[in-house]
Amino acid sequence: MSGKVALICGGGRFPIVAARAAQARGSEVFLLGLRGIAGKDVEEFPHAWVGVGQLGGAMREISSRDIQDVCFIGGLGRPELSDLRLDWGALKRLPAILRLFRGGDDHALKGVIKLFEREGFRIVGVDSIAPDLLAWEGAMNAVAFPPDARDDLVFAAKCLADLSAYDCGQALVVSKRRIIAIEAVEGTDAMIDRVAQLRETGRWRASGPSGLLVKAPKTGQDLRADLPAIGPETVAAAARAGLRGLAVASGRVLILDRANVAAQAERAGLFLHGFAAEGA
Amino acid sequence: MSGKVALICGGGRFPIVAARAAQARGSEVFLLGLRGIAGKDVEEFPHAWVGVGQLGGAMREISSRDIQDVCFIGGLGRPELSDLRLDWGALKRLPAILRLFRGGDDHALKGVIKLFEREGFRIVGVDSIAPDLLAWEGAMNAVAFPPDARDDLVFAAKCLADLSAYDCGQALVVSKRRIIAIEAVEGTDAMIDRVAQLRETGRWRASGPSGLLVKAPKTGQDLRADLPAIGPETVAAAARAGLRGLAVASGRVLILDRANVAAQAERAGLFLHGFAAEGA
Repeated sequence: MSGKVALICGGGRFPIVAARAAQARGSEVFLLGLRGIAGKDVEEFPHAWVGVGQLGGAMREISSRDIQDVCFIGGLGRPELSDLRLDWGALKRLPAILRLFRGGDDHALKGVIKLFEREGFRIVGVDSIAPDLLAWEGAMNAVAFPPDARDDLVFAAKCLADLSAYDCGQALVVSKRRIIAIEAVEGTDAMIDRVAQLRETGRWRASGPSGLLVKAPKTGQDLRADLPAIGPETVAAAARAGLRGLAVASGRVLILDRANVAAQAERAGLFLHGFAAEGA
Repeated sequence: MSGKVALICGGGRFPIVAARAAQARGSEVFLLGLRGIAGKDVEEFPHAWVGVGQLGGAMREISSRDIQDVCFIGGLGRPELSDLRLDWGALKRLPAILRLFRGGDDHALKGVIKLFEREGFRIVGVDSIAPDLLAWEGAMNAVAFPPDARDDLVFAAKCLADLSAYDCGQALVVSKRRIIAIEAVEGTDAMIDRVAQLRETGRWRASGPSGLLVKAPKTGQDLRADLPAIGPETVAAAARAGLRGLAVASGRVLILDRANVAAQAERAGLFLHGFAAEGA
């Protein structure tokens, strides 16, 4: 892929990394930083700032640059209606926007994508502008995925798939078919930190490296929008919790700085494994 | 029901409350305190102490008193094999016992029940010896269940039912079809405390009383064994988290000191509602 692409940038470091990767692949990038959410480094690229509620402004900025491809990247959090300074473009679409604020996170993102598509934009996924950011299938470092963890992986992937219907839970920690923790609003890293506490307090007793982090997008999640992500903090949390390793859905989970994260996991004795759908 | 009943007592205050209730209903009770788990107040009743791994001893104590009915009550935690001082009775049944240590909590309890049944005991539920400890259907205090919470209740109850297959998650907090937290190993009260933190840190933003605790046993859970329970701490946590109220499965959730817990919730402005299967 080349040509022009607009990145609508949420929080975290992914937008910048993706923008660099897209440039390296020959794309001309334009970054739209979400005010109060995206980082200041958006300004290292051709950019504009826009409020979360200012869809009209965002669409105008993109159209005026003759860009058709739009990529959403970075954490959006979950905006509260009261935080949004709605512009006229947003007000015209208010019923659609209000619908975004019901239901889970995925629901909200699907709605935003629909609004952009209705205006004639093409929404592209990170996989087309920066495929290097995605987990691949199989071992991503030299710590082999232990065969006896396969059963837990399949079990966990099925559980996450069943939770998809409730628009919640992109990650869990499992050990011998026992689910130690499930993520909801707290986020993956906080969920792993909870596992560390459960071990410290003896609420979960396990000796030596135990437990597996399994992370995957929701079934039916629009992969052009909010891809689940891991990064150095995730690996650090997993090491503190004494896990055996991390298994993430290949092609469907972003890894910030994949080479370094894989090496960091390896130093901690953790495998970093990419699995196809439902642990297969 | 009357006659003799042996209570195999785990932790917490339920065993004592249940023993008193059973006596009040005319039963002759004999308490078997699980060493290191049950509280000292077991000794206020005819009793014996037995280790978790000492099934043989437990069964002998019960048979020698010509008792056939056995009721499991109180939190078992999840014993670690290394903590168990296995007796000969347990060693003879070792393959069956080892199976208990795979899979989730419910799995372990079902196994223990099977072992007792195989030896000719009849396992009775708390509902038959102390029905007053169970949630009833409908309002348990004067704070009405708000009609607009019905949708969340049905949504949450379905989610818990779907999680049953994974032997995890007896409670969650939901708000407008968004699942804020799901319980795994940490326990209900810790899960609710997490919700309080998510609000404090702005990770979950909601104004005024928001969110609903929903608690139910797993589908297919053996109700003669580990009934989910709430108590004063649960209500206190719900008040700290600023929830709207608590909804528990009627007839299938234990409430420690129901009258006081209902009044405590009422003072905090929280409804305490018993629902039939899947929020119906």
